[in-house]
Amino acid sequence: VAPAAPRSSSPAAADDAPATVVAVDCNGADLGAAEVAAGAALAAEQGVHSLLFGPAEELGARSSRVEVVDAPVSIAKSPDPAGAVRAQPQASIVQAARAVASGRAQALVCAGGTGAALAASLFNVKRAAGIYRPALALPLPVPRHPVTLLDVGANAVVRREHMVQFAFMGAALSRTVLGVAEPRLGLLSNGEEAGRGSPLVLEVHAELSERARAGIEGFQFVGNVEGDDLVAGAADVVVTDGFTGNVALKLMEGVSQTMLSAIREAAGAHLRGKIGGALLRGALGSFRHEIDPERQGGAYLLGLRRLGVVPHGRFTRVGFAQAIVRAERGAREDIVGRTHDALQRAGALREAPVSAPVASLRKAE
Amino acid sequence: VAPAAPRSSSPAAADDAPATVVAVDCNGADLGAAEVAAGAALAAEQGVHSLLFGPAEELGARSSRVEVVDAPVSIAKSPDPAGAVRAQPQASIVQAARAVASGRAQALVCAGGTGAALAASLFNVKRAAGIYRPALALPLPVPRHPVTLLDVGANAVVRREHMVQFAFMGAALSRTVLGVAEPRLGLLSNGEEAGRGSPLVLEVHAELSERARAGIEGFQFVGNVEGDDLVAGAADVVVTDGFTGNVALKLMEGVSQTMLSAIREAAGAHLRGKIGGALLRGALGSFRHEIDPERQGGAYLLGLRRLGVVPHGRFTRVGFAQAIVRAERGAREDIVGRTHDALQRAGALREAPVSAPVASLRKAE
Repeated sequence: VAPAAPRSSSPAAADDAPATVVAVDCNGADLGAAEVAAGAALAAEQGVHSLLFGPAEELGARSSRVEVVDAPVSIAKSPDPAGAVRAQPQASIVQAARAVASGRAQALVCAGGTGAALAASLFNVKRAAGIYRPALALPLPVPRHPVTLLDVGANAVVRREHMVQFAFMGAALSRTVLGVAEPRLGLLSNGEEAGRGSPLVLEVHAELSERARAGIEGFQFVGNVEGDDLVAGAADVVVTDGFTGNVALKLMEGVSQTMLSAIREAAGAHLRGKIGGALLRGALGSFRHEIDPERQGGAYLLGLRRLGVVPHGRFTRVGFAQAIVRAERGAREDIVGRTHDALQRAGALREAPVSAPVASLRKAE
Repeated sequence: VAPAAPRSSSPAAADDAPATVVAVDCNGADLGAAEVAAGAALAAEQGVHSLLFGPAEELGARSSRVEVVDAPVSIAKSPDPAGAVRAQPQASIVQAARAVASGRAQALVCAGGTGAALAASLFNVKRAAGIYRPALALPLPVPRHPVTLLDVGANAVVRREHMVQFAFMGAALSRTVLGVAEPRLGLLSNGEEAGRGSPLVLEVHAELSERARAGIEGFQFVGNVEGDDLVAGAADVVVTDGFTGNVALKLMEGVSQTMLSAIREAAGAHLRGKIGGALLRGALGSFRHEIDPERQGGAYLLGLRRLGVVPHGRFTRVGFAQAIVRAERGAREDIVGRTHDALQRAGALREAPVSAPVASLRKAE
């Protein structure tokens, strides 16, 4: 099996050709392309080079570390991302993905439209050798118990072998990016017992248990975990299908937001006066910062020949900057190559090359 | 199609034979059978009669409104609930279900072991005519946006027709118990667009849309809802399969608990001194009370010939009392008969009688 992708360029590259460039699709963000460009400017202050694709008149002036390609066509909201990628080669996400495929950039950030990002990546960047399906892995900022959840929405329908591979991909990410030496990996289910779950979960549980008995290098399989375990530190990595993962992710966001609002309101009824209000704002502010998804920068799109990072479309420049910085760091640290090596050592790669399941993207995100 | 169950007895029944009695399985609660019995005593103070099944020496003295049947055998934690129900007819949940089937009691409350409650009910109380599968429907105490979620765990695997029927059952519950005149019903998915979702979700969406075009009596189909919509008031009733519903429910519980703890901790760092702490305890206390699942009493087990209510096993006497009160009120208000009538008018009942899918219970909860 061939390595997934060439390792990142030598840091000894000439000053005028940065070793690592991040291609950024600026279309599709809730706050507009200018907000993404503002994020790129913040990332540039940290020394990160990016190549922006979007409507040039909104992206502002290029700088020494920010290059701009005029690409006003957006397919971020297309109901048929795969069809749109085929039909609109001038779309910003397609041009950004092509820049990564050609080696002009080393990582991809897409500010809006996960479906389009996935389709454009599959067509252009392409899957890494031996990978069935790319997956979206999101490190969740759970206080005291950070956990990486995947797949959070790249594949609404998956098979056993896909989810088993997600487990290895998630564990490799946890080790390389988050520095967890021997991640505990759990399988999301409706009960902790091995016999509980959908038919798919039972199959995946059986295979991971079998592999664990034979000895898995690089992570420990802790069995099924339930919804509450996800935020209680029961595992460092939790694997699920993209349908359940997406529902779970959005539910967590919704419950967090609803609770913060409701607590603020309930507190308002108790904490009358300026001093009480200020105290409470301080307390809630600390907590809000701790769980802020923008701090993390978004989800890692794993399983391609190059790294992708998908921030949330509603992020501000702070989150987009973080996404660009994470993508650059991930490319420099060779997450793709190291994940591939880990999968290869574990025998978790598909042996024969497969053709890209592009048709299935229509319903994917 | 025959009516699901006889309507509740006349309120003119003799004083020494209460019109409505709730059969309560006391085994399986985290705090023990005595805590459930304490809940029954609280319910008795509100005039509710119950018939307790559990270890008599733990249940305390019977009273004018609480009868005790010594039934120490518990199958609440059995990994094979259907097998345990068959093998152990003396088990408390089986005796409680038989009391409901025989008419000695009019509703069932089970303090622990949803799988055993479901199996014992299917064997003894039996499904209502025209119902494919019972479902667990939980009214969620979301601040300002109460929403009923079903199925939260009775069926890990379902087919299109099951979920369509859950929609009608959930809407009927919302109308009869929660007083929502024309509930907005949503289908939980990984995207709001009609084309997003698992194959099952796409099928259910198509059928509910088709029925909505023809005119649905009693609820309004609002299409797909995402995880965050679940707590944002996008729908009054949300339908999903029991796997996703169970993961979602436990995740909501976990996120709520984690956030309350973390906010208390973050606040502790800011609110030094006794006054600040007291202010914050007041604010969080109000909120904690508002979202307390014990206030609601648990999930309604719908689709049987009699009503079931399933409190959480970790409830205190307060939650168990509420479950018993809700079960009694639901039986008096004839939730089962009114739900059945609504399904019949909507043409949502299965025409031919079906045999109970007992084997499938092994993995159910």
